Amino acid sequence: MRHAVIMAGGAGTRLWPLSRRMRPKQLLRLFDGASLLQLVRRRLAGLFAPENIWVVTSAAYLDQVAEQLPDVPRDNLIGEPMGRDTANAIGLAAHLLVRRDRDATMAVFTADHIIQPQTRFAAAIQAGLEAVERFPQSLVTFGITPQSPHTGYGYLHRGELVAPGTWRVAEFKEKPTLETARAYLASGEYYWNSGMFVWRVEAILAELERLLPENARALKRLATDWERVAGTPAAAAAFAQLRRISIDFGVMEHARSVLLVEMTCDWKDLGSWASVASTRTADEAGNVTIAPRAMIVDGRQNVVISEAEHLVVLLGVDDLVVVHSEDATLVCRRHEVERVKDLVERRRKPFGDQYE
Amino acid sequence: MRHAVIMAGGAGTRLWPLSRRMRPKQLLRLFDGASLLQLVRRRLAGLFAPENIWVVTSAAYLDQVAEQLPDVPRDNLIGEPMGRDTANAIGLAAHLLVRRDRDATMAVFTADHIIQPQTRFAAAIQAGLEAVERFPQSLVTFGITPQSPHTGYGYLHRGELVAPGTWRVAEFKEKPTLETARAYLASGEYYWNSGMFVWRVEAILAELERLLPENARALKRLATDWERVAGTPAAAAAFAQLRRISIDFGVMEHARSVLLVEMTCDWKDLGSWASVASTRTADEAGNVTIAPRAMIVDGRQNVVISEAEHLVVLLGVDDLVVVHSEDATLVCRRHEVERVKDLVERRRKPFGDQYE
Repeated sequence: MRHAVIMAGGAGTRLWPLSRRMRPKQLLRLFDGASLLQLVRRRLAGLFAPENIWVVTSAAYLDQVAEQLPDVPRDNLIGEPMGRDTANAIGLAAHLLVRRDRDATMAVFTADHIIQPQTRFAAAIQAGLEAVERFPQSLVTFGITPQSPHTGYGYLHRGELVAPGTWRVAEFKEKPTLETARAYLASGEYYWNSGMFVWRVEAILAELERLLPENARALKRLATDWERVAGTPAAAAAFAQLRRISIDFGVMEHARSVLLVEMTCDWKDLGSWASVASTRTADEAGNVTIAPRAMIVDGRQNVVISEAEHLVVLLGVDDLVVVHSEDATLVCRRHEVERVKDLVERRRKPFGDQYE
Repeated sequence: MRHAVIMAGGAGTRLWPLSRRMRPKQLLRLFDGASLLQLVRRRLAGLFAPENIWVVTSAAYLDQVAEQLPDVPRDNLIGEPMGRDTANAIGLAAHLLVRRDRDATMAVFTADHIIQPQTRFAAAIQAGLEAVERFPQSLVTFGITPQSPHTGYGYLHRGELVAPGTWRVAEFKEKPTLETARAYLASGEYYWNSGMFVWRVEAILAELERLLPENARALKRLATDWERVAGTPAAAAAFAQLRRISIDFGVMEHARSVLLVEMTCDWKDLGSWASVASTRTADEAGNVTIAPRAMIVDGRQNVVISEAEHLVVLLGVDDLVVVHSEDATLVCRRHEVERVKDLVERRRKPFGDQYE
């Protein structure tokens, strides 16, 4: 059977003050009332049965995730006691999944991005599933056809073509310099590393055991006992001892066979308020409002974001980002929104705990 | 006996979104937790006994006024069913006052200004009271020694000196052009018309009867029956028929004898967020924060105002005014705050009723 695992563990300080420790980016309902998590789940409709959709998230977010995904069985929501990076999140999901379905095919999705159009997304996933059928020992990673020389992503260099739109991965590349990114783009051989995968659950478990044996053993023990220990101090203690490591660094870069399936989609990482704004069409004055009540008078190129019915009025100002949450408001320059992360992480002390 | 009447009826759209129809400027607690009304009342301490302090306000604000001035007798709070300008507000107070104290001296104060220092304010009031003792038929108006060629105030031209710091008023002047205001300032003979007065209650009643006989008659009838009709549709109906007219235009400019007592105080009209900000000392970067929780990072010359515990963060922005209220937030340029009045008055429709 096909299973989908949605990775929804991140916190996202760059979307402060809407995103908080207890209200992470992927749960914010910024897209006509839907959250990124809900958009991912919609994207999977027709590809995976609801009872085969799983979510790995922080234990603290379980109730919010359950509320946002009412058709996903509560038993499929895996709450990590703490973040231990993607190798462990995926490993735990794989061990839980194999106990339910020994013959499972497992696809992994992130909840940080807007991906469009749906048809091409679905076609790429279909191609990935077919690649796994044909090469059941391989791990398949999805590569996004780059649309710009982005220096904020890792890249995949494709090698030998094994099927239409499917290659062996020649090399994993860290975030490049602008010059290198331009060369990647020009060559046509490089893809953005999407963090989305598909594989036979047996294949990923075998590689985990080979490459990260200690983590694999601990995760298997946890999974065996999960119904009993989930949410207890014992689970937290076991997690605390797991070595933190990403799936790319811990597994993909060293796996015996990795294939790349291309995904020719528009892929927007919602890593800042500017990127959230870029998901909307601006009005004639270049303003973007994602708010039930906002009024911009005589202003250009502003972004106003608010979840609530709070009225936000901008009068005669340009190039600002104004974000209102129930207990905090941010006003900053539009081209400086990247500084929010720094502000929140370095300066959270003066804010006081309740604003984290 | 000496009585003080505080005029506290205005609404103040220029301090939106904190000031509202039901939360007028004079009741906003912007001064270390005190409102303008409370500052006026403090200013009168030692000059008037609490039982001789009266407030004329909108009937809609009576409860808030009572809560803010707990030592003023509730019977001294006069609630107008609707605004009918200062001649009628003062006239109603005079008629109510004379029924309690036939021999009263009545001083009138506004609740729109910050006046400092207290010692000079008290000295001027004392001089006014003495002028009334010596000239019991005269109406005394307080003139503020101008500190700039302000074009937003009316002016008083002083005439014959009758006592130290006390002159006959030669002429009332409307708001001048800048050129005229500069000439006024240079001459040393002109004062800002403060809207503060002192007189024998008999003297003002006589002038009201002579100059505005219809209003005087209606107000006398209302006062006779006030305990019974206050707050009823009958009072509203009577008010609705009163001719709207200001005390300056209706009485002072035509009165038989008007004296000017100079008040050499710093006198700040809180007519905009800029003037509210000017009551505070800015920090090294020129920022003014009147908010329990505000943080300005790498920004200059900003003004942040909030009554509530809402956290307002400004990051890398300059010359902005940001005002947060429970249900609305305003962001505008500091030198354009005067536009707020226009925005609220012309555009209140799109805001929706609850934001007025």
